[in-house]
Amino acid sequence: MTSASWVPVPEGSPFTPHTLPYGVFAPEDGAPRVGVAIGDHVLDLARALGDDDTFARPSLNTFLAQGRSRWQEVRARVTELLTDSAHRAAVEPALHRADRVGLLMPFEPADYVDFYASEHHAANIGRMLRPGQEPLTPQWKHLPIGYHGRSGTLVVSGTDVVRPWGQTRPAEGGAPPFGPSARLDIEAEVGFVVGTPSARGTRVGVGDFADHVFGVCLVNDWSARDLQAWEYVPLGPFLAKSFATSVSPWIVPLDALEAARTAPPERTEELRPYLRDGEDWGLDLALEVRLNGEVVSRPSFTSMYWTPAQMLAHLTVNGASLRTGDFYASGTVSGPDAHERGCLMELTWNGQEPVTLSDGSTRTFLQDGDEVVISATAPGPDGSRIGFGEVRGRIVAGGDGS
Amino acid sequence: MTSASWVPVPEGSPFTPHTLPYGVFAPEDGAPRVGVAIGDHVLDLARALGDDDTFARPSLNTFLAQGRSRWQEVRARVTELLTDSAHRAAVEPALHRADRVGLLMPFEPADYVDFYASEHHAANIGRMLRPGQEPLTPQWKHLPIGYHGRSGTLVVSGTDVVRPWGQTRPAEGGAPPFGPSARLDIEAEVGFVVGTPSARGTRVGVGDFADHVFGVCLVNDWSARDLQAWEYVPLGPFLAKSFATSVSPWIVPLDALEAARTAPPERTEELRPYLRDGEDWGLDLALEVRLNGEVVSRPSFTSMYWTPAQMLAHLTVNGASLRTGDFYASGTVSGPDAHERGCLMELTWNGQEPVTLSDGSTRTFLQDGDEVVISATAPGPDGSRIGFGEVRGRIVAGGDGS
Repeated sequence: MTSASWVPVPEGSPFTPHTLPYGVFAPEDGAPRVGVAIGDHVLDLARALGDDDTFARPSLNTFLAQGRSRWQEVRARVTELLTDSAHRAAVEPALHRADRVGLLMPFEPADYVDFYASEHHAANIGRMLRPGQEPLTPQWKHLPIGYHGRSGTLVVSGTDVVRPWGQTRPAEGGAPPFGPSARLDIEAEVGFVVGTPSARGTRVGVGDFADHVFGVCLVNDWSARDLQAWEYVPLGPFLAKSFATSVSPWIVPLDALEAARTAPPERTEELRPYLRDGEDWGLDLALEVRLNGEVVSRPSFTSMYWTPAQMLAHLTVNGASLRTGDFYASGTVSGPDAHERGCLMELTWNGQEPVTLSDGSTRTFLQDGDEVVISATAPGPDGSRIGFGEVRGRIVAGGDGS
Repeated sequence: MTSASWVPVPEGSPFTPHTLPYGVFAPEDGAPRVGVAIGDHVLDLARALGDDDTFARPSLNTFLAQGRSRWQEVRARVTELLTDSAHRAAVEPALHRADRVGLLMPFEPADYVDFYASEHHAANIGRMLRPGQEPLTPQWKHLPIGYHGRSGTLVVSGTDVVRPWGQTRPAEGGAPPFGPSARLDIEAEVGFVVGTPSARGTRVGVGDFADHVFGVCLVNDWSARDLQAWEYVPLGPFLAKSFATSVSPWIVPLDALEAARTAPPERTEELRPYLRDGEDWGLDLALEVRLNGEVVSRPSFTSMYWTPAQMLAHLTVNGASLRTGDFYASGTVSGPDAHERGCLMELTWNGQEPVTLSDGSTRTFLQDGDEVVISATAPGPDGSRIGFGEVRGRIVAGGDGS
């Protein structure tokens, strides 16, 4: 792959010829269709490749279902079209300026699973909620804990998030208060989009990850901590998470992440064979969380205890099938240092240590009007950086509860 | 509605002219399409109503999305066609013998939520797992506890269920064992199919239940208790439930259940306004659970603490949207008496009191080859009974774990 495109790629753009992420865009003059981002432009794939059946569609799912060798073939062809200037005259009419198109939810989600794969996040939450006890639950280092979320409320970056209302824990003997969540939080996560399905009653091995997962995006799994504390024992979080989960519009294919692959942290418990790391599928992604424009955290994905390959192997070890469009997220990405924590609950230590913004205001949890942007970059070939773009969301007040 | 059809309805058939449930069938000579069950026959709706766009489809979703007034209009028309013998000559060619067609998954599931709405079930589980403590968690009588399940592994009645493998709790200090679940259980439940969607950021009121929910079916939410015990703290059940959930092929419309409506049990805690019962949406359904042909339980839905209208109001109170095809289940239906318990964990008191079958064999949990059938009836008009048919599933051994 050459590193130069005949399409101008501005300095610092996340979308170099090494990234080539896939999304769904709405052109000014037509129906939504699949595109690839390059610099400040979006390539109309149906037009560039002459394949309307796959790409003149409002979701990536048809392409996702075509499998890994096809994903690689299309990536190779798009790379050629965008880097060999012999193609310029033919391809240029298929380019749209990114600021003139809308970006839509890139795939039709099937099931959504959220994991809990950061040891630092899980341990911090344990320390806050169960002080004096072991911070991690006994199974934590034996399997990647996960649970199903609501796929119907996955929304694309830029969608406003309505503050949820709900019940919270009452004072001793009282009735549970009902109202807007007062502890609305972010969770900076990384998401994985499944392309190739699997049959019920079979497993996807830890080594088969790249045959099933197409690509990676950014996730903000908005969480209402006060609703969660009242509802979650014994069956887990429900309304605290189900109101909205935001995803970034560009899916970075696994093939763009070869240089980002890294060994996961050393394991302190021997793993069952189905979870043993073969190839390294730790990922050296550097995340950044901005609140109203100010960086409040820089979580590193490198310290995640469980890899996405292990998450997928665990998800299917009981014979659960995969569908095209299945989506799973890592859980909050928190590193070992305080400035690497991926949610406000950790950053403010359960609301006790507010974050101060440059206008002098403070935050424990999110206020109406607050906007959160999560972005990330990763090592690319030859010392370059590739980018994931961003997932953005703003909090708006909900109804009055009547 | 008259009570007689010109189609012969055998004595004891669940599918009288008062039931008229909807499903998807595969005729011997064509593609899957929507049908209505009557006695031992299935009516091809596309052919009978001349509406291929809605009914010549492999799922109910298009019809579900058309909304309540359309559901009522079609039910009235089908009732007329099947009870007025003037239509016999025209309609008879659209009838298939039920034993000559295959029954498929009746709807394309969007999100799947499982509740925990039986006080007797929740209290029994509490007594077994937390002896000496309050059997119900503090929020139990303030809100219907629920969690998201895996919609991709909802399967239609008759589909074999592969015994899941997984990790279980280790002996003190040891490694977690890995193998086939040794505590595979049933959960006899009732499911609710959503037709009319709702917008994100809005709520569906407890009084709007019948505008959104199309109908009711039977559910067996197979559960691996040993996997669940090891994995479920703090984020809830995951692999213990995600391998398969069986549903009955016939969806009984709410309009068939007017005579089954009943008041829910008296509330001992004052409910928040969004959960206050308006119309009575308790349902007087009599379930029966058979294991290898022998009745092992007769759970009554009448004693369920939370109504399906309350479940829906709670599910959406945080602004979570509904999609056509959303599905939610009641959780295990257990009545106050020992013979009304809806799962083996309760029936055998956590495996301590095996069930004895007439061949002298005993069961604590399910063995390979065991077949479970859950059926139900409800009061119909004029002292009649209407039926739900059944949900059936057989356990088969899983792979060797390699």
